[in-house]
Amino acid sequence: MPNAAVHPLWGSLALDRAARESLQDQIVGHFRDAILSGQIPAGRRVPSSRQLSNELGVSRTTAIEAYDRLTAEGYLHSKNRAGLFVCELLPEDFLHGGPAPPKRPNFNQDDDAQLALPFDPRRHRMPLAPGMPAVDQFPWKHWTRLSLQVLRERPIDALYYGDPRGEYALRSAIAEYIGEARGIICAPDEVIIVSSSKHGVDIATRLLASTGDKILLEEPGHPLNHQMAKSSGLVPVPIMLDDKGLDIAEARRQAPDARLAVVSPSHQYALGTTMNLDRRLELLQWAERSDGWIIEDDHDGEYRYSGPPLAPLFTLDRSERVIYIGSFSNLLAPGLRMGYIVAPPSLARSFLLMGASMVSILEQMVVARFIEGGKLAAHLRRMRGLHSNRRELLIDALARHASDILEVGTAPEAGMRLTVHLPDRDDDRAIAQRAVDAGVFVHPLSIYYSGPSRKSGLVLGFASTAEEDIEPAVKILASIIRSAD
Amino acid sequence: MPNAAVHPLWGSLALDRAARESLQDQIVGHFRDAILSGQIPAGRRVPSSRQLSNELGVSRTTAIEAYDRLTAEGYLHSKNRAGLFVCELLPEDFLHGGPAPPKRPNFNQDDDAQLALPFDPRRHRMPLAPGMPAVDQFPWKHWTRLSLQVLRERPIDALYYGDPRGEYALRSAIAEYIGEARGIICAPDEVIIVSSSKHGVDIATRLLASTGDKILLEEPGHPLNHQMAKSSGLVPVPIMLDDKGLDIAEARRQAPDARLAVVSPSHQYALGTTMNLDRRLELLQWAERSDGWIIEDDHDGEYRYSGPPLAPLFTLDRSERVIYIGSFSNLLAPGLRMGYIVAPPSLARSFLLMGASMVSILEQMVVARFIEGGKLAAHLRRMRGLHSNRRELLIDALARHASDILEVGTAPEAGMRLTVHLPDRDDDRAIAQRAVDAGVFVHPLSIYYSGPSRKSGLVLGFASTAEEDIEPAVKILASIIRSAD
Repeated sequence: MPNAAVHPLWGSLALDRAARESLQDQIVGHFRDAILSGQIPAGRRVPSSRQLSNELGVSRTTAIEAYDRLTAEGYLHSKNRAGLFVCELLPEDFLHGGPAPPKRPNFNQDDDAQLALPFDPRRHRMPLAPGMPAVDQFPWKHWTRLSLQVLRERPIDALYYGDPRGEYALRSAIAEYIGEARGIICAPDEVIIVSSSKHGVDIATRLLASTGDKILLEEPGHPLNHQMAKSSGLVPVPIMLDDKGLDIAEARRQAPDARLAVVSPSHQYALGTTMNLDRRLELLQWAERSDGWIIEDDHDGEYRYSGPPLAPLFTLDRSERVIYIGSFSNLLAPGLRMGYIVAPPSLARSFLLMGASMVSILEQMVVARFIEGGKLAAHLRRMRGLHSNRRELLIDALARHASDILEVGTAPEAGMRLTVHLPDRDDDRAIAQRAVDAGVFVHPLSIYYSGPSRKSGLVLGFASTAEEDIEPAVKILASIIRSAD
Repeated sequence: MPNAAVHPLWGSLALDRAARESLQDQIVGHFRDAILSGQIPAGRRVPSSRQLSNELGVSRTTAIEAYDRLTAEGYLHSKNRAGLFVCELLPEDFLHGGPAPPKRPNFNQDDDAQLALPFDPRRHRMPLAPGMPAVDQFPWKHWTRLSLQVLRERPIDALYYGDPRGEYALRSAIAEYIGEARGIICAPDEVIIVSSSKHGVDIATRLLASTGDKILLEEPGHPLNHQMAKSSGLVPVPIMLDDKGLDIAEARRQAPDARLAVVSPSHQYALGTTMNLDRRLELLQWAERSDGWIIEDDHDGEYRYSGPPLAPLFTLDRSERVIYIGSFSNLLAPGLRMGYIVAPPSLARSFLLMGASMVSILEQMVVARFIEGGKLAAHLRRMRGLHSNRRELLIDALARHASDILEVGTAPEAGMRLTVHLPDRDDDRAIAQRAVDAGVFVHPLSIYYSGPSRKSGLVLGFASTAEEDIEPAVKILASIIRSAD
C-alpha cells in the first residue's frame, strides 16, 4: 500500500513500497517532476533530509542519497550551509533551453533529458558557446550577390519537388570540393543533401538498420544520436571512449551483433579526440566481418590545426561500408540548415527512397554557386586561420588563468571546441549554470553522457568567440569555479 | 533441396521446395529482383510460361500465375501476342523516378516499392502531374524584393542554430494566418516549422508513439506514411477508406490498441474524399477514449471549391489530442521545403525536444515577411480562383473525352488533384507508364495502396497544369486507355 505524505511544498508524495522502483528512485522522480513542472519553484529551499526521512517514513540514508542524486543531476544546489535549494537553471534548460514539457504517459522522461542542445540566440552569441564557426565573418556580400543572381533568373526548377537527393549542381559542386578538401573521390549521384549532420545520421540510420537492431554510439557523444536511434526503434549501445576513440574490442564484447556504428573520428563530438589509424582500420574490419555499417560524422574535420592529417574512414574503406557525413553548419553557418551525405556507390541509390531532401532548392542553388565560384575554398582558408588563432588564444588564457582548476589535457587537433575536465568537482552543470548567468555560455560535459558513469567537465567553443572576448570569458569562468561551494 | 536452373537470360533461379514461401512467390520475387537489378534488361522478352514450367519443373499453372502477377504489378507487359516483355518504366520508377537500388540484406524490398513519389523536374512540368500548385504563378517579384530586404539587413540571428521550433516571426505570422484561413486559434509557441508535411507527420509520429505501437493509416494513402512509420519501429495498420473517410469502426476492430491515426480529412490524399462531420467527431471520440493521438494532414485544405466548409479536426478537438499539419508546398511551392505543425498547448513544448528545425532561417524570415505583408493571402485568393478554373476545365475535358472509360465519380471538393477510376481495367501502372511516355504525367492509383486489395485508377493533378494543356492531355490519356491491350 502506498504511504502518502502531503506537504505544503512538495505536495502529495505517494511512496509505493511494493513497487519495483526503489524508494530512493521514487523520491528522486517525484522531486524531479515537481521541480520541472514548477510545483516546487526555482530558488525554493527544500526540507532537510532529516525532515524528509521523518515525514516519509524512510531511512535517513535514503533521504540523503536521494538529495545527493538531485544535487549531482543539477536540480538542487547547496548554498552557504543554509540547506538545499532548487536550481534556477535546470539540466533541461541546457538541453532545450526552457522548462521541461508536461510529462505525458508515452514520453520517456529519461530520454527527454538527453534531447536537444540550447537554442537561445542571445546565449549563442555569448563567448565560448560551442558548436559554431566564426559566423561574425559570414560572407554576406558574396552570398547576397549570388542569391540575387539566382532569384533574377526565376528558376522554375526551384519550385518543383526536385530530386530527393538534392540539386544536381550542388551535389556536383560538393563532390568536387570534398575531393580536394578531404580526399574523397565520389560521383555527384553519391552525394545526398540533408538539412544537418544530425539529419544525415538519422536517415542513414533508418535506412541501414531495422527495428530492434543495436547501434554503437560514442559515450560521451551527441545526445541526439542516442535519442534519434531510440525514436527509430533501435537499441543504442553507448561505448565508453578511450584516448584513441571508440573502443572496438569493448564494442565487440558488449554488442557482438551490432549493425551500425556512429563515430566522429576527425574530432570526437564531446571529447575532441582524433581516432588513430589503427583504430580506424580496426573499425573498418569490424564492419566487414560483422556485416555492419559505419556512419562517419565528419562535421568539423575541415578545421585541422595540428597532428598528422588522417584519412577519413570513407577513403580507407574497401568494402563500401562507410557513410560519410559533412555539414555546412561548420563550413558556413548553422542557420543554413544544410549538410550532405556521401554514400558508397552500391548504396547511393537507396537514399532516393528516403525522400530525403528537406532543403530549400533556391538555397541549394546559391550554395552550389558559392562552391563553384571558389568562394567556399577561399572562405575556409580564412576561417581556418581565424579559428586556429582563436584556439591558441583560448589555450593560452586557460593556461594563464585556470591551469590549477581545469585540466586541458591534449588540445584538440581539429574542430571548433575544446573540452576541459574538472578533476576536483562533479558539479559541472551547476558551474555551467553560473557561467551562463554571468554571460559565458559553456556546456557541462556530463550532458553528453547517456549512462550513469560521467566525467565532469566543460565544453568550450572557441571558433565563434571574438578574439577580445576570449581571455575575459576564461577569467569569469575561472572565478566561478573557484568561488563555487 | 533447391532445384536450380541456370538460364542465359534469367540466371540462376534456385527454387526451394521446402521453403515457407510458395514456388509462385519465389518465381515472382526472382524475376522482380532480376528486372530491378537490370539483370533482365528493359524491353527484353521473357521465356514463355511453357518454357518456364519445363525448365523449372513447376506446373504450367504456377508459371502462368507468376507471369500474371508480374504483369499486373507492372514488371511485364504483353505486346501484340508476341509474348511478354520487361516494361521500360517499372513500378519503382513511378515511386522514385529511377531504377531500383541494389538489394541489400537488411532492406525490405516490399517497403522499397512504396517509398517516394517521382522527382524528375522534366516530368513534373508535364500536364496533369499531381501534387503541385500553380507554380507558373509564383510571386517572384515580391519574393525577390523581400529576400533582398532580409539579406541587406545581414541578420546575424539567421546564422545561429535558432529556435528548434523555427523563427518566432514566422511562427507568429503562421498563427495569425491560420486563424483567419482555417479558424485555428493558437499561440506562436504552438507552431513548429518543419520542412514538409511529411516531415511533420514523421516527427509527430516519433514523438507520440513508441516502438511497436500501432498506427492507423488511410488505405489508400501517401506511401511515405507507411514507410516512415515502419522505419520508426511502428506497426502501420492500413484501414480501407469508405466514401466518408477513414472507417473508424473498422479501425477499432482491426487495432483496438492503436495509439495514433494519420488522416487527411479536408481532402484525402489518394481519393480526394472529404471526411464528414460525424466521422470527424467519431474519430475525436476514438482518440479520447483510447488515449490516442490524431495527426491531421491538412496539406491542401486551403483550396476548397464546393461543399460546406468543414472545421478542421484541430478546432473540433476538446481534449488536445490533434496535431495539425500544413504545408507551404501547396500554398507557395514545393521547392521551398517548408511546412508547419500546430500542436495543442499541452504538447507544444515537447516538440522542442525533437530538435525539429530543418529549415533555412534566412528563408523562414522571407516567408514571415511574405505572410505579414498580406502577400500570402492575396496570392492564395488568386490561386484559389486559378485552381478552381483548372479543375473545371479538367472535369469538362474528362466528361467530353473519357466519360465511357474513366469513372470520375464526385469531383473533389478541395485540393489540387482528381482521382479517376478505371472500372474495366486493372493495369493502371501500365497505362500511367504509357501516358508518361506520351508526355502526360499521371500517377497510377494502385501505388497508393500498401495492401494487396487495390483499386485501379489514375491520380490527375490539375493545379499546376496550364489551362491550354488540360484538354489535349486528357485526349492523349483517353486514347492511351482505349488503345491499351
